[in-house]
Amino acid sequence: MTKPSDKGPNWYRELHSVVDHLAASWEERGYWDRTGTLPIPSHEEVVRIIHRARRILFPGYFSQTNINPENLQYYLGEEINRLFEELSRQINLALRYEALSRGEGLPVSTLGEELALKFIQKLPEIKSILLTDIEAALTGDPAAKSRHEIIFCYPGFLAISIYRMAHELYRLKVPFIPRIMTEHAHSLTGIDIHPGATIGRSFFIDHGTGVVIGETTIIGERVRIYQGVTLGALSVPKEAVEELRYRKRHPTIEDDVIIYSNATILGGETVIGARSIIGGNVWLTESVPPDTKVLLKAPELHLLRKIRKNLGV
Amino acid sequence: MTKPSDKGPNWYRELHSVVDHLAASWEERGYWDRTGTLPIPSHEEVVRIIHRARRILFPGYFSQTNINPENLQYYLGEEINRLFEELSRQINLALRYEALSRGEGLPVSTLGEELALKFIQKLPEIKSILLTDIEAALTGDPAAKSRHEIIFCYPGFLAISIYRMAHELYRLKVPFIPRIMTEHAHSLTGIDIHPGATIGRSFFIDHGTGVVIGETTIIGERVRIYQGVTLGALSVPKEAVEELRYRKRHPTIEDDVIIYSNATILGGETVIGARSIIGGNVWLTESVPPDTKVLLKAPELHLLRKIRKNLGV
Amino acid sequence: MTKPSDKGPNWYRELHSVVDHLAASWEERGYWDRTGTLPIPSHEEVVRIIHRARRILFPGYFSQTNINPENLQYYLGEEINRLFEELSRQINLALRYEALSRGEGLPVSTLGEELALKFIQKLPEIKSILLTDIEAALTGDPAAKSRHEIIFCYPGFLAISIYRMAHELYRLKVPFIPRIMTEHAHSLTGIDIHPGATIGRSFFIDHGTGVVIGETTIIGERVRIYQGVTLGALSVPKEAVEELRYRKRHPTIEDDVIIYSNATILGGETVIGARSIIGGNVWLTESVPPDTKVLLKAPELHLLRKIRKNLGV
Amino acid sequence: MTKPSDKGPNWYRELHSVVDHLAASWEERGYWDRTGTLPIPSHEEVVRIIHRARRILFPGYFSQTNINPENLQYYLGEEINRLFEELSRQINLALRYEALSRGEGLPVSTLGEELALKFIQKLPEIKSILLTDIEAALTGDPAAKSRHEIIFCYPGFLAISIYRMAHELYRLKVPFIPRIMTEHAHSLTGIDIHPGATIGRSFFIDHGTGVVIGETTIIGERVRIYQGVTLGALSVPKEAVEELRYRKRHPTIEDDVIIYSNATILGGETVIGARSIIGGNVWLTESVPPDTKVLLKAPELHLLRKIRKNLGV
Amino acid sequence: MTKPSDKGPNWYRELHSVVDHLAASWEERGYWDRTGTLPIPSHEEVVRIIHRARRILFPGYFSQTNINPENLQYYLGEEINRLFEELSRQINLALRYEALSRGEGLPVSTLGEELALKFIQKLPEIKSILLTDIEAALTGDPAAKSRHEIIFCYPGFLAISIYRMAHELYRLKVPFIPRIMTEHAHSLTGIDIHPGATIGRSFFIDHGTGVVIGETTIIGERVRIYQGVTLGALSVPKEAVEELRYRKRHPTIEDDVIIYSNATILGGETVIGARSIIGGNVWLTESVPPDTKVLLKAPELHLLRKIRKNLGV
Amino acid sequence: MTKPSDKGPNWYRELHSVVDHLAASWEERGYWDRTGTLPIPSHEEVVRIIHRARRILFPGYFSQTNINPENLQYYLGEEINRLFEELSRQINLALRYEALSRGEGLPVSTLGEELALKFIQKLPEIKSILLTDIEAALTGDPAAKSRHEIIFCYPGFLAISIYRMAHELYRLKVPFIPRIMTEHAHSLTGIDIHPGATIGRSFFIDHGTGVVIGETTIIGERVRIYQGVTLGALSVPKEAVEELRYRKRHPTIEDDVIIYSNATILGGETVIGARSIIGGNVWLTESVPPDTKVLLKAPELHLLRKIRKNLGV
Repeated sequence: MTKPSDKGPNWYRELHSVVDHLAASWEERGYWDRTGTLPIPSHEEVVRIIHRARRILFPGYFSQTNINPENLQYYLGEEINRLFEELSRQINLALRYEALSRGEGLPVSTLGEELALKFIQKLPEIKSILLTDIEAALTGDPAAKSRHEIIFCYPGFLAISIYRMAHELYRLKVPFIPRIMTEHAHSLTGIDIHPGATIGRSFFIDHGTGVVIGETTIIGERVRIYQGVTLGALSVPKEAVEELRYRKRHPTIEDDVIIYSNATILGGETVIGARSIIGGNVWLTESVPPDTKVLLKAPELHLLRKIRKNLGV
Repeated sequence: MTKPSDKGPNWYRELHSVVDHLAASWEERGYWDRTGTLPIPSHEEVVRIIHRARRILFPGYFSQTNINPENLQYYLGEEINRLFEELSRQINLALRYEALSRGEGLPVSTLGEELALKFIQKLPEIKSILLTDIEAALTGDPAAKSRHEIIFCYPGFLAISIYRMAHELYRLKVPFIPRIMTEHAHSLTGIDIHPGATIGRSFFIDHGTGVVIGETTIIGERVRIYQGVTLGALSVPKEAVEELRYRKRHPTIEDDVIIYSNATILGGETVIGARSIIGGNVWLTESVPPDTKVLLKAPELHLLRKIRKNLGV
Repeated sequence: MTKPSDKGPNWYRELHSVVDHLAASWEERGYWDRTGTLPIPSHEEVVRIIHRARRILFPGYFSQTNINPENLQYYLGEEINRLFEELSRQINLALRYEALSRGEGLPVSTLGEELALKFIQKLPEIKSILLTDIEAALTGDPAAKSRHEIIFCYPGFLAISIYRMAHELYRLKVPFIPRIMTEHAHSLTGIDIHPGATIGRSFFIDHGTGVVIGETTIIGERVRIYQGVTLGALSVPKEAVEELRYRKRHPTIEDDVIIYSNATILGGETVIGARSIIGGNVWLTESVPPDTKVLLKAPELHLLRKIRKNLGV
Repeated sequence: MTKPSDKGPNWYRELHSVVDHLAASWEERGYWDRTGTLPIPSHEEVVRIIHRARRILFPGYFSQTNINPENLQYYLGEEINRLFEELSRQINLALRYEALSRGEGLPVSTLGEELALKFIQKLPEIKSILLTDIEAALTGDPAAKSRHEIIFCYPGFLAISIYRMAHELYRLKVPFIPRIMTEHAHSLTGIDIHPGATIGRSFFIDHGTGVVIGETTIIGERVRIYQGVTLGALSVPKEAVEELRYRKRHPTIEDDVIIYSNATILGGETVIGARSIIGGNVWLTESVPPDTKVLLKAPELHLLRKIRKNLGV
Repeated sequence: MTKPSDKGPNWYRELHSVVDHLAASWEERGYWDRTGTLPIPSHEEVVRIIHRARRILFPGYFSQTNINPENLQYYLGEEINRLFEELSRQINLALRYEALSRGEGLPVSTLGEELALKFIQKLPEIKSILLTDIEAALTGDPAAKSRHEIIFCYPGFLAISIYRMAHELYRLKVPFIPRIMTEHAHSLTGIDIHPGATIGRSFFIDHGTGVVIGETTIIGERVRIYQGVTLGALSVPKEAVEELRYRKRHPTIEDDVIIYSNATILGGETVIGARSIIGGNVWLTESVPPDTKVLLKAPELHLLRKIRKNLGV
Repeated sequence: MTKPSDKGPNWYRELHSVVDHLAASWEERGYWDRTGTLPIPSHEEVVRIIHRARRILFPGYFSQTNINPENLQYYLGEEINRLFEELSRQINLALRYEALSRGEGLPVSTLGEELALKFIQKLPEIKSILLTDIEAALTGDPAAKSRHEIIFCYPGFLAISIYRMAHELYRLKVPFIPRIMTEHAHSLTGIDIHPGATIGRSFFIDHGTGVVIGETTIIGERVRIYQGVTLGALSVPKEAVEELRYRKRHPTIEDDVIIYSNATILGGETVIGARSIIGGNVWLTESVPPDTKVLLKAPELHLLRKIRKNLGV
């Protein structure tokens, strides 16, 4: 390149060396060898896909178009066709990026279309499960005024809707996109459900901020959880991380369990038996049998002080 | 409809049956009977209304326009007129949607205008209360540098501002919109205040992520709470949900109380007496008298281990 | 102004007095005297600056442009030049606003350019630290599939990236903007790191919603924390707020510490010794020596009940 | 309104009297009495309607969506439904505005829907005529490469397409909107066809800038015209304007006529007989019989000079 | 700059030399010496200013806001204040750019505000003249249905409106912006009126495409012109250009003249006397007395052919 | 597809048959066989390409970025790389679309990149020619104030700039895109230059609305033309169109010619000799030798009337 002249403001000349340093640091780390020049899937596009899928699952809630029995099929047909195109393009980008970053050959060029179609064919089933989640919210939250309000306003239902879609893509082994989806939900709602988690029908999360549900969690039917609940992994010594990567690391929650706010349940072998109730702020790393109540109460701590006094400790 | 030809890619033909299934599922559930073709209020519009109302309450903070004593009235006049139009349109949509979904007749066509006007007439009062909230933040947070920073950057103040507006609409019995407003605040800040809650002057939420304040909570003046605090309802057996829907289910917090991070206070009859301090991570389901300190400390648990050892349990 | 006619709908006439009240309330409080008509920095612009800086630090992840060794310098050069202009403009606005609101004279007109340049010159160093944070995520989270996923999807990494930039601006004494940056991260991720905090290399926050890290916190190298963790200040009596404003109020976390979800550690003199592990939901206001484990387990509470029974309390 | 303070920059105070003058001038002229507060149709919306109608008539040319036999009906169905809604809303606005400005009662509330439906039912016929216009361009312009290029690039075809739609709305007596449509075409192409003109099949305008075709013009089939051609009215003495408003004021062009660039043909009784050719720059105010050639050539003017010389004039 | 690696696609490497050539060509021509780094006024901003000014002159026509006697002053006040800020910023840019490109010192920093104010103070007068132009259109065009249609749809009125504003700025010696304004009108309507032209009240341009009105043209009152009319300068020998730059080069049109389509009138000393009528396609370089009709008719050319025949030429 | 129910408004049911008709008409005409599902180039993208190319040719005129000798190469480098990507994508679309519509095999997949590179390599030459066009405007138009004004405001220069780019693509045999470019210029300026025309250096079009320059026109150096000038083809009998498609049909204009407004020059064998002047409204279909003046003046027509009178015709 030609040498820029010596005139002109100092600021701009000072920037040259920053450019050179950052360019050099990039090449040194060999990023180019791994990823070539292939584009990565687009956050904006994945968010657009989520919006479209929600308009398909619940026509009339997320757009101002007049939808009625006479035009419903046109509406759904057009939206589903566009979803197919947008999704297959993003899946193809994700597959190619992953193949290249692993040093593998490029995938079959129509694999994206195939997987997008499989996902779309799951939409009616996803919808029928989401309808059970709506009923769970209605019976679980005395503040819920109507089904409309739940579909339209409830962050817990939003996070579950996105999780259920992301989970289908995760099962189809689509890379990147499921995680982008659930992180979008996480950002909007503070609810962090890994797309790999398995969650039964009639699931309800109330308020939800701070909820974490790990990759290998298994949750039964009619489970209800509150804000700040963690279903996580036990402490991982650094040397064990690789070994654990493909093992069950997160708990199993059986049917009809309720877990109150800020409770923490950890470990891949921890099973919360059916119909148990886990109190707020409880910290559990061991299984509890069905129909158990585990509660932590401040009054008990008052008691403790009394004991301490009595014992003269 | 005419039959599409047999040429063309397979993918697109496969999508037909998904369209048909989703269209059928919609009609089966009788959604049409309930909602007809009436549009629902728009999330985007409600967010626009929130932005406009904040520009009205705090001119100069959320726009790049030059505002000065000579043009302040024009500015406020124009913003308030637009707020009136946007809000009355959204309220009318909400009222009609609710009436139809309940099978009632349509409301008076100018009810939206009437309620929007009542809301706008409350804005000076809302502003004067918000000014006390700013002072509370300034005295409550040693990191606060100035009033400007609080108005401009503090998520707690943002959530309280939106709650105070939503609460006025809630009191005017406007459906949907108050909840859309507070869920918008929830999404931005992680602070979930139900528009039905009653909150006194000089309220301060620090950090705030994970705060939940339930529908029938009553909070006095000069109360300060921290991130992760829940003011919630006790466990609800499914059969009791309906009965509870219109009862006081959330606690009462009297004047000058401080509640530290991640504390949980539950129950409609639980009263935290004036000037009490509730420690972090405490879980309370019973009332405490005024001037009480309730603390949970890990060192006490060290002690417990010692007791256990001494007693040989 | 001329008198508006008596025709026309009532609604609009009713709005006049709201306009007048709000205009009057503004002037009464003397806002004009303090801030004049100077514009405040723009949220949108600061967010744009964050996006641009991330594109500079990790080319190819946040845009759809083809970037390769042949055009990398052009790309970086153009982005860095624009960053310089946008950032120096916002810094100048912030400096002037602060000067005016303190009643001081206007700062040197090129101070914004000077500080923006200093910030940009720090970018290579910020990048090299962020690369250690990526490795920390990879070794700390068994669910992490690749470095790409961490850069692209991990909210913890996003929050740390924004914090590390905001911290440099904080050190350059740029007002407002560092806080706007970290509050943007807070809104997206639920992670609230004050730009004043000092955080060593190889830092990893998992899930992260509800994390709070206060202004005077000091964190060593290779520290790992989970969602809901608070590193905060002790209770502040109102009369002491002013005195505390410039003192160390938040804890010190030494190298290689792990802090599990929802733990709360408070106080400027609290030091968590190197290699310690703080369990979930623990509440700590005193120092612990190196290599300590502090855990809170529900089973211990079962035990408590047993003690109580034995003692007949 | 309260009196603004005397502080603040002079500029802004000076603006007050401009506001007052403009407000007063508006009221004086009684605009309010005529139009009340009713909104007028929106330019942007009418342009959106034109774009949508073109996508319906020529699927695949003006959008990047993949359209194929499997999804064509969904695509058309969705676009036509939206066109119906947008158009009926704009027609209703236009009808109401016109009624009010004439002091008449409001029209039937569903008249907009009725007229929009009638317009849409004409679309297949409009399309079949436009296909003849495409063939006319292909045979009339040696530079035309393909039908695709004509649909996609030819300003003459664009202007005719918009005119043919506007003309249907004009025939349905929809006020305002036909004219907004043809003025949009005028702005894009420089071709000004009044929506009231009657134009037969296989019409071709080449280049087109400066073409004017008046309200009562009648054009036969297979007519071809070039840039700058005017089919206009004769000079109108001011006192005759009212009388002329509903009379034929513009010429009749019979089948197979060609009119070259910048020719001007004026008058309601002027008839250009079939198969005639009107040369460039010719100015005609009288009829010509079929199969006539009317040409104006500069060489004739050379001749004139010679005559003048010979005659000694 | 560091040398880019030899890997990577050829295309991108080939682009380097284009970059270098274009960079070099720029510097060679010394553009930097003349213009420094100062930004030029923005087309987009000037267009925004035009739109705002039209909303101020004709409230209710170009926005969807409800405007009524109760909120008219707020509306006008807010719009005028914003116009003042936008316009003064653009004028300041234009003044500085011009000063620098002439090698002069920078203008007084508030000159932009001063001139913007002067322009805005002219708006009531501009409006009162535009009202006479509306009446002229109504009486001049039998196709005009109402004043509303003229304000809303007529390209001639649009071009005149923009000209009248640009002319005021031209008289205030604002550089660049008047021309950007009239070129915007030119692009939308095909009507090219130089902002320097002087045009009396009640001016009407019908259809208008191709109209050219030169810088030193003077037009009286109640003049009507049609599409394609040129009021231009005579042929300029290259050596005379400089001398002519500040002389009257374009014609004078006295009161009540009508000029039909595609007529061309040239020369600074050409005067068209009051009440004259200039026919279509006429080409005039000499003055005509009042009450003259100058017509060019094809029949005369038929006649010519007859003469030629008779004379045996 | 399932049958839609009989409930719902009539309007929507009526739309079904329009959908079916339009879908059927499309398939009948066999459009699918010709074009398959391949997307066509995008108007918006081509316009974006034009804007980018103008920013590259004239840095600082069409963006608000600060450009100076220190950052010029970064700026140009980034813009040129993006231009390369956008243009190669559109060229590839155009090539494939053309191949398919002709029933040919798909072109080499990197042909788009190859042609885009060739185009970009021509940019320095295009720029050096455009600089001669700027000088031509400066010497040709006494109203021109500066080179800046010509680059920034002159529609003639805009049209020539776009033509010069489109012409290079035309020479590279890129389909569709050159025409989309010149039609964009046509729409903005009313100047219609076919991309196939050959035009020498120092070309100036003044005002320009209505100018038409046909595909096989050849124009020498230092030519100046005015608004409404047509350089076109002679009348084409329908049966001869095919034969003419690849012949020279438009005139040749030699060096230093001036053609005044609304003149029409037609025919592939018509040659206007060097240094000739063609007067306004003249209509020429035959060659004129060098140094000729061809003028049409109204006074001559006055004369004609006198002749007629004298001759008693």
